[in-house]
Amino acid sequence: MSPVPGTGSLFKRLLVGRAVRSDKLGDTLLPKRLALPIFASDALSSVAYAPDEIMLMLGLAGGAFATTHSWQITIAVVFVMVVVVASYRQNVHAYPSGGGDYEVATVNLGPKAGLTVASALLVDYTLTVAVSVSSGVQNAGTVLDFVQGKEVMVAVIVIVFITAMNLRGVRESGKAFAVPVYLFIFAIIGMGIVGFFQHFNGTLAPAESAGLTLVPEDGKELTGLAAGFLLLRAFSSGCAALTGVEAISNGVPAFKKPKSTNAATTLLLMGTLSITMLASIIALSQWSGIQIADEPATQLLRDGQAVGESYVQNTAIGQLSESVFANFHLGVIFVSIVTGLILFLAANTAFNGFPVLGSILARDGYLPRQLHTRGDRLAFSNGILILAAAAILLVVVFRADVNALLQLYIVGVFVSFTTSQTGMVRHWTRHLRLERNSKERARMQRSRVINAVGAVMSGVVLLVVLITKFEAGARYAILAMIVIFVIMLGIRKHYDRVRDELAIDWDKDKPLLPSHVHAIVCISKIHKPTMRALAYARASRPSYLEAVTVDVDPDETQALLDEWDRHDIPVPLKVLSSPYRQITRPILEYVRSIRSGNPRDIVTVYLPEYVLGKWWEQVLHNQSALRLKGRLLFTPGVMVVSVPWQLASSEGAERDWIDEPPVPGSVRGGNL
Amino acid sequence: MSPVPGTGSLFKRLLVGRAVRSDKLGDTLLPKRLALPIFASDALSSVAYAPDEIMLMLGLAGGAFATTHSWQITIAVVFVMVVVVASYRQNVHAYPSGGGDYEVATVNLGPKAGLTVASALLVDYTLTVAVSVSSGVQNAGTVLDFVQGKEVMVAVIVIVFITAMNLRGVRESGKAFAVPVYLFIFAIIGMGIVGFFQHFNGTLAPAESAGLTLVPEDGKELTGLAAGFLLLRAFSSGCAALTGVEAISNGVPAFKKPKSTNAATTLLLMGTLSITMLASIIALSQWSGIQIADEPATQLLRDGQAVGESYVQNTAIGQLSESVFANFHLGVIFVSIVTGLILFLAANTAFNGFPVLGSILARDGYLPRQLHTRGDRLAFSNGILILAAAAILLVVVFRADVNALLQLYIVGVFVSFTTSQTGMVRHWTRHLRLERNSKERARMQRSRVINAVGAVMSGVVLLVVLITKFEAGARYAILAMIVIFVIMLGIRKHYDRVRDELAIDWDKDKPLLPSHVHAIVCISKIHKPTMRALAYARASRPSYLEAVTVDVDPDETQALLDEWDRHDIPVPLKVLSSPYRQITRPILEYVRSIRSGNPRDIVTVYLPEYVLGKWWEQVLHNQSALRLKGRLLFTPGVMVVSVPWQLASSEGAERDWIDEPPVPGSVRGGNL
Repeated sequence: MSPVPGTGSLFKRLLVGRAVRSDKLGDTLLPKRLALPIFASDALSSVAYAPDEIMLMLGLAGGAFATTHSWQITIAVVFVMVVVVASYRQNVHAYPSGGGDYEVATVNLGPKAGLTVASALLVDYTLTVAVSVSSGVQNAGTVLDFVQGKEVMVAVIVIVFITAMNLRGVRESGKAFAVPVYLFIFAIIGMGIVGFFQHFNGTLAPAESAGLTLVPEDGKELTGLAAGFLLLRAFSSGCAALTGVEAISNGVPAFKKPKSTNAATTLLLMGTLSITMLASIIALSQWSGIQIADEPATQLLRDGQAVGESYVQNTAIGQLSESVFANFHLGVIFVSIVTGLILFLAANTAFNGFPVLGSILARDGYLPRQLHTRGDRLAFSNGILILAAAAILLVVVFRADVNALLQLYIVGVFVSFTTSQTGMVRHWTRHLRLERNSKERARMQRSRVINAVGAVMSGVVLLVVLITKFEAGARYAILAMIVIFVIMLGIRKHYDRVRDELAIDWDKDKPLLPSHVHAIVCISKIHKPTMRALAYARASRPSYLEAVTVDVDPDETQALLDEWDRHDIPVPLKVLSSPYRQITRPILEYVRSIRSGNPRDIVTVYLPEYVLGKWWEQVLHNQSALRLKGRLLFTPGVMVVSVPWQLASSEGAERDWIDEPPVPGSVRGGNL
Repeated sequence: MSPVPGTGSLFKRLLVGRAVRSDKLGDTLLPKRLALPIFASDALSSVAYAPDEIMLMLGLAGGAFATTHSWQITIAVVFVMVVVVASYRQNVHAYPSGGGDYEVATVNLGPKAGLTVASALLVDYTLTVAVSVSSGVQNAGTVLDFVQGKEVMVAVIVIVFITAMNLRGVRESGKAFAVPVYLFIFAIIGMGIVGFFQHFNGTLAPAESAGLTLVPEDGKELTGLAAGFLLLRAFSSGCAALTGVEAISNGVPAFKKPKSTNAATTLLLMGTLSITMLASIIALSQWSGIQIADEPATQLLRDGQAVGESYVQNTAIGQLSESVFANFHLGVIFVSIVTGLILFLAANTAFNGFPVLGSILARDGYLPRQLHTRGDRLAFSNGILILAAAAILLVVVFRADVNALLQLYIVGVFVSFTTSQTGMVRHWTRHLRLERNSKERARMQRSRVINAVGAVMSGVVLLVVLITKFEAGARYAILAMIVIFVIMLGIRKHYDRVRDELAIDWDKDKPLLPSHVHAIVCISKIHKPTMRALAYARASRPSYLEAVTVDVDPDETQALLDEWDRHDIPVPLKVLSSPYRQITRPILEYVRSIRSGNPRDIVTVYLPEYVLGKWWEQVLHNQSALRLKGRLLFTPGVMVVSVPWQLASSEGAERDWIDEPPVPGSVRGGNL
């Protein structure tokens, strides 16, 4: 509500745009060139922090350790990526409806498995927003000095901005987001090509941190088990590059036809680009001698002396761009801008996936119905707003610290991968039982092998992630998943219970018509609203009609009775005594006494209600009526009738009062 | 709401006690022996901090300055006290209805003057609670070490405790509070007698701070204007002893009969006790050589060296008790306990005055009606809760610092004194115009002189307080008064506007009976609640009846139509199309189309509503119905009928759902 009628809706119109008709939904389907930036920006953008995390983790055991092992870790991550992309290409063909991992798990492994996947994905979507935006702000901080020290505030502002963009609907977001994603791909691949050329010509400048010595965090080199654990930890962090694969499989219905083929192609394209960029950044980082430390102030030595707190450790991409474009400062700025931008856009992937999943869960009764049935611009406003709130909470709690947030990350993704791929194996096994065509059978068997490899691989990675990150933060993510799981199961059980209770057994529950209607009009004063309530009650021609007032103050009651007589109001006025000067209880008791004398009758209670334009005006009125209504609803055989009186101030306020968002249709997830 | 049905009300029963019948109100009237502790504990308790403030302010100019002038200040304060008590004895006789200063100002100077007084008193009641509790906690800290450093938390707990006591009603509070007040009077007067005896026998031990030298805060003695200003500041602080006088004049209706005479006697008793205690504490402080400094760490020197941060400055009463009872340690502990207690009880004065004033203001339309018409135990729960919240806010913001809070204090009291006494002069002038009896006239003229002196005196003190405390904090109090004044005026204007708009001109506004009733039952599914709504609607025999559903999903709509036919439901089902998949708008537009065709008809919309036991269950349902109702209320000629369906979980939850507090009667302020 806004003081000037109409500005509220105008503001909403500007922010959210105009409502979209159902039959125009086809227009919002995405061609591949828009689907790639929308659904793949998460996976692509992770090359902005995944290399740093690999080097940082390895660097805990010193610079030599990092140099030796970073290539091994990269190859392991790339291998996992290849397997996962191959697996998900099977998914998008088998399940083109966009339920994604949730659908696959539910159909093949049962509702509890589906719900597990859903809980995991909801948590990870939130973390995607928090991690990407925090990393984007960190990146922006390397060029924009004023951001430093205000990371949390800037990150919150960015999330709010992305939220507003998404409330405008998927199409506009797509267009707005496409350009920076392509610019990022261009910048990183371009930097790679130039860098490789320079390296093989021997003209690649050393990085700003190349002259530093990276010492182990606790001062000594690691060996044996400890070294192995560190390698696994670095691998876990590197696997952040794999998030976002499921975004495409969840988003299949948003693709233009042929949906599955287009989605599979986009998936392949995304995997190839991701691997290329990750590998080239790691390679160039090695060649230019970049050192990334967990505690730069103490771990990095210059001429044997710790560099101290004043040292600002730039990201790998940042240092790399300064080496490659040492004589082309515009290139450095360009890389830094597009990196920051794509990270913000990566958060958008979650803003596409989260509300769709939430809506599907609401449709299945696991979340409140509102999440399914409301929203402007065919997007799912409620889900978007919940995601934004949760992400802001994470950013604030973890002070926008990318490294801390990454410890909670990707557990959910690999829970989802593992469950979904296991489900896919079951899927093919089931279909193979029915399929007789040998060519089809061969294709299915090949798919089953791919998905089986995917399942085993994801399971192993999940174990590694759990072991290496549990203490560091993953336990909070798992706790959140369990809480969400339990809440969703509780909501579903509640809806089931209510449905059973409300179901009609047509043989037994013959609806009986009540025999009489006793109408009661509650009166405290004689004025227009009460006279209207009386007139409406009379027009409804009940079997019995009386006005009722509660005797709280004898003088006022007498004055009311006198006025009633003076104006010859043609309805009897009954006075209810109230020794404790209550209003609700005497009316309740009177209603119950009518019902107990005539159990087949119903009692209709007419309450005059004032309608005002401003919320604070509303607070000053109707309080007794609201209380009375709240109690009457618990009394069987009673109807409560609100007879509104619109005061002058209510005019024009209706538009602001309660918004009427269109209900999203079934296209984006309803046909599961 | 509580998970176990009934525990909520049981808890409330324990905390608030049982409801009191109107005809038992007589029982809660107070005899003088209970009225004194209840209404005068504020004024009496101020001797616990007023002497400290006088000495502390004078001490800013050094120990010699304080010693020379503290007697002068005390005499000035005592003189003001005598005049104010004499003036208010006129008030309680002339206005025995307990409207107090608000009533006097409103009747004699107009509503704006009354509202000014009311704003001032509301602010000062809040400050009374904050100051008294903070000072009590400070006092307790001198004996109970664990309180030190946790003053804010302890003060908040004390306020919560006093609030709970007051929610139980005035009678119980009276009894619980009487004993400590009398013990405090006994302790201070007793200490005074023993101390005087010791002094004149030459056996009074020097105070712990007697050996210290008090130097001026800025290092040099004050002269001329600066010294004069400091004297006025000390006088302002000393006037804190005068708060609470108006509490008795506001509380006249709570006295036993003869109300006015009893109140006047209590007032005189209170004034005498207050002056005696204040004077004896100041005298003994001088004789025992007590030094109180604003900044003890730097202002107090021992052998020429500042005592430093480790020095703990005890209150004047604390130091005094240690001198007088040097050989009787139990006496020291006794004084300290009763001092702490009476300060907490002083806060209770405000808990008596604030809700009564709030209720009177609500009755006059300056505050929301709820404040007038609701409350348990004949006390005014809403006012009590608001006062507690505001006081807690003050304590938290000012970190329970007595000296800081005192800078905001007593502005309101003297605004109230001055306005009220001016009003009293007008009162007598008006009555003198009509009175012919010469004996009565002489009495009235004498009263008028007393009130005129009171008015001038209060006005001068108000000016002094404003000048000396404005910068130090009084401006915040004044700002709060202005804000409260404006809000209350706005609420009154709103109620007046609504009353005028709703008033019936019986010559013009002939109520017309609507010609037909169109009934619409909103259906989304076929289950028990919708069938009940249909049955009730049919029993009401409207002129036209139809069921209506909104076509959001074509498949679901078709299924509903099929089921409707299959069960032969004898009401036509109309399908409203909804291209934007909205629910509310199509129904609204349909209702409007019926009305525009038949403007003299009314439309009755039946909404099935689920009633559940827990709030979180409620959140999962009825959202669409609530939205629809919110919009329908703005549409003229529409009635909204809630047909509740009580689910099993609602059973027994009614008691917790909405409480039904008795409405306070008119005895404590309604007969103004």
